[in-house]
Amino acid sequence: MIEGKQIIGFEMVAEGSASFHSFNPATGEKLHYQFTKATPGEVNKAAEKAAGAFQVYRKKSGAEKAIFLETIANEINALGDELVDLCCQETALPKGRIEGERARTVNQLKLFASLLREGSWVDARIETADATRTPLPKPDIRYMEIGLGPVVVFGASNFPLAFSVAGGDTASALAAGCPVIVKVHSAHPATGELVGRAILKAAQVCNMPDGVFSLLHGDGKDVGIQLVKHPAVKAVGLTGSFTAGKALFDAAVSREVPIPVYAEMGSTNPVFILPEAMRERAATIAAGFSASVTLGVGQFCTNPGILIHEKNDGAKEFTKSLEEEFKKTSGGVMLTETIFKSYANGLAHHTNVAGMDVLALGAEVTQNFGARPILFKTTAETFENVTALSEEIFGPTSLVVEAESKEGILSIARNLGGHLTATVHGTENDLIGFKDLIDILEQKVGRVVINGFPTGVEVCHAMVHGGPYPATTDGRSTSVGTAAIHRFTRPVCYQGMPDDLLPAELQNKNPLNIWRLVNGQHTQK
Amino acid sequence: MIEGKQIIGFEMVAEGSASFHSFNPATGEKLHYQFTKATPGEVNKAAEKAAGAFQVYRKKSGAEKAIFLETIANEINALGDELVDLCCQETALPKGRIEGERARTVNQLKLFASLLREGSWVDARIETADATRTPLPKPDIRYMEIGLGPVVVFGASNFPLAFSVAGGDTASALAAGCPVIVKVHSAHPATGELVGRAILKAAQVCNMPDGVFSLLHGDGKDVGIQLVKHPAVKAVGLTGSFTAGKALFDAAVSREVPIPVYAEMGSTNPVFILPEAMRERAATIAAGFSASVTLGVGQFCTNPGILIHEKNDGAKEFTKSLEEEFKKTSGGVMLTETIFKSYANGLAHHTNVAGMDVLALGAEVTQNFGARPILFKTTAETFENVTALSEEIFGPTSLVVEAESKEGILSIARNLGGHLTATVHGTENDLIGFKDLIDILEQKVGRVVINGFPTGVEVCHAMVHGGPYPATTDGRSTSVGTAAIHRFTRPVCYQGMPDDLLPAELQNKNPLNIWRLVNGQHTQK
Repeated sequence: MIEGKQIIGFEMVAEGSASFHSFNPATGEKLHYQFTKATPGEVNKAAEKAAGAFQVYRKKSGAEKAIFLETIANEINALGDELVDLCCQETALPKGRIEGERARTVNQLKLFASLLREGSWVDARIETADATRTPLPKPDIRYMEIGLGPVVVFGASNFPLAFSVAGGDTASALAAGCPVIVKVHSAHPATGELVGRAILKAAQVCNMPDGVFSLLHGDGKDVGIQLVKHPAVKAVGLTGSFTAGKALFDAAVSREVPIPVYAEMGSTNPVFILPEAMRERAATIAAGFSASVTLGVGQFCTNPGILIHEKNDGAKEFTKSLEEEFKKTSGGVMLTETIFKSYANGLAHHTNVAGMDVLALGAEVTQNFGARPILFKTTAETFENVTALSEEIFGPTSLVVEAESKEGILSIARNLGGHLTATVHGTENDLIGFKDLIDILEQKVGRVVINGFPTGVEVCHAMVHGGPYPATTDGRSTSVGTAAIHRFTRPVCYQGMPDDLLPAELQNKNPLNIWRLVNGQHTQK
Repeated sequence: MIEGKQIIGFEMVAEGSASFHSFNPATGEKLHYQFTKATPGEVNKAAEKAAGAFQVYRKKSGAEKAIFLETIANEINALGDELVDLCCQETALPKGRIEGERARTVNQLKLFASLLREGSWVDARIETADATRTPLPKPDIRYMEIGLGPVVVFGASNFPLAFSVAGGDTASALAAGCPVIVKVHSAHPATGELVGRAILKAAQVCNMPDGVFSLLHGDGKDVGIQLVKHPAVKAVGLTGSFTAGKALFDAAVSREVPIPVYAEMGSTNPVFILPEAMRERAATIAAGFSASVTLGVGQFCTNPGILIHEKNDGAKEFTKSLEEEFKKTSGGVMLTETIFKSYANGLAHHTNVAGMDVLALGAEVTQNFGARPILFKTTAETFENVTALSEEIFGPTSLVVEAESKEGILSIARNLGGHLTATVHGTENDLIGFKDLIDILEQKVGRVVINGFPTGVEVCHAMVHGGPYPATTDGRSTSVGTAAIHRFTRPVCYQGMPDDLLPAELQNKNPLNIWRLVNGQHTQK
């Protein structure tokens, strides 16, 4: 039932000779599905079909696109246990997690559908004409956001549903009016095919154009780069590693016509514990932090990879709590052999740094590709001297950094690169006393979390899941939440266009009843 | 009174030894002001001061920034005739034009000030907490746009006020909360210094931080590239040539930390005349077109460089009208020797293309750097075969392309690159019959003009002065109008932040009374 082919518009094809298998990371065994890698001809066909489909799809109304997204959601649900079981096999993630992720994926599609139905996301702006104005008459000018064109999406290994074939980038691109070509992650191609076929079915049911969605198998450096360099492609979304994201960015900006790349590339998500909170809530913070570090075997982009606190009278007690709580944690099977090896290499590097202590280990792990939680500790001095300590180790590990003073903490904050999140635990007094820390952090990240933990990314209108480089290649955007629709749009304005030829969003009568800026006034009239 | 120095924050300095003069293009003579080029140390100082100033300036309220922008506007007006006279000398533009441009520059600053006072531009989004939600409680998350950091602005030669030192990029960057460093155009350094000193004075009067504004003299390839590559710089705005824009783009994307570049690089602004309109309004269109081509000696980025129409029963009459109307036009002195030479080279190229006719010439010009208007004509076949014919010639010239059929017109439209504008003249019937043309054009440009001419860019909320590459390096943006503020911002969100530590824009009580998206509802509450 898994065919292992490319989905190119409404066709399933496999012209190539190169193939690969996916693996069950829990056993290390090959799964019995075989996938054919896309040929250059297939890549080209998918891109050209997407370009053709764009001319039809861009004219679909918000309501029509909403039904399409909702139908995708329903078709994914209709895959039932088959999807969950296959996904568990390919990722070694527990069933409950996959079911939760499926719910998130479906809800995300529905949230974008509701955004489209409401319709105000297009940022409609209307300036009405004034023929009597001097020295020059004022023309009628009307502005709205439109889709950029075909978008290429690279799925993430760690979210086989929510950041993959029908994940956030796909949902926001389709909502924006852009056809999508997914280069499915080679760690979960069978999961990808099932979801891709659900989208294909929804496209047919909803009378969407052939080419509004395609899914290709293959290597990033071949199929991926060819897609990014294809003239028909207008934007790229990726959740993955720095190496992968940077390679796509470099390919995209060196095209004859450069295109935007939204690559989310990793983050260590620093957590700062302020003095009063450390004294008053040592055990609670230690427990929450240990859970956040080890959630999902630490395989989250928002995993807290550094904890910074001051060496003061509560520090000993807090360290003891951390030790105790972290010892209670468990690891598990990692998503792929590559991730497992990279985790092992990262730990080996940390262990060899002079001045590095191992504060605590989680429960022993005996499984294939099993990762054991480990909590390191070092001084601010060592941390600032060894650049590699500020780099992400993807997995259930974190590094506690003890600073000598408030100034030491601020210095670490000032030297941070771009991250997805930064977290501060503090009492009211702490937060007032460390307002300057928050000022620094909001310039370094997309999301500032107070008295919480960064794992768990709410899908909503107000989420920013993004951040300055190198967390992403474009800090002006988010990959989660409805604001993500704007990564795949650009504004256009119409001057002197007759009312009946304008898009509905800009017509005088406001037939869609959306919020618009009319002569500078926000109004639904 | 012109000092010829760099303005670095609140200091005027000139440490270097290299210098240059500006010229009066009308006479070809050197003006008697000498300007010292910035040294690498001065460039570095300006960038570091801007980074320091950002930490103060980013915390200024919308009202404080509004007063700053208004004070700049007032200080520019206070320069009086001295500014106008000097600007006329450096550009050979007529006094009326400079006065008009000054009014536009001042109004633009005031428009951004009103945007800041109103305050809703930050796109505030609030999701309130729900502790009872299952399976997981919903956190409190609040989103808004914040400034990126120091912005480098490169002024245009052809708008010595409105797209220069205190032009659109400077106004939108300062409005966004970003310090600005201007690399002043070497064609109008004295004008630049006067305006720069007006900004300096406004910054001091308004108690803005030292470094919120700097102005440097020097060459793009030295001072310009050093600025773009400086780690403290977070975004770049330019209005200029393709060569200049592409060089800055390449420098910016190859930095260790890539930054956005908004370069507006030129456009031929195609004009399509549809059959009925051509028959019914031949003389009016011909007159309007000829005026638009030759306005300001054709030195506008929105200058209509191509006119496309069908060869049908009205074509002969229309061509005759064009000939007659174009003959009435006059040229004038161009802005610089480089522009003049480039115009001459462009004409020489066109003239040598086989199948190219000269349809009409404007009045003869005898002045120094004087450009005579010239209107070319060719067939669609020649136009499609000779790529260089679709490239911009900056100056009072245009090319009439006669297509054999509607399909010929659509083919030309489909092959267009990115442009700032596209214009269509048509009756109601025409526009309905050519809806497919408009569909194509809106994908190629930032602004579609119906029955008007592209010159004259309205500064308002709904303007898009931008367009797909190669018109600009970033088609997701506009350089004119209030939407330009978003080129220098990015979103950040706060999770679980105590109300009194939130920016005013996101506090529960909505003290600024701005429009916000609260739990998905647009509201001012």
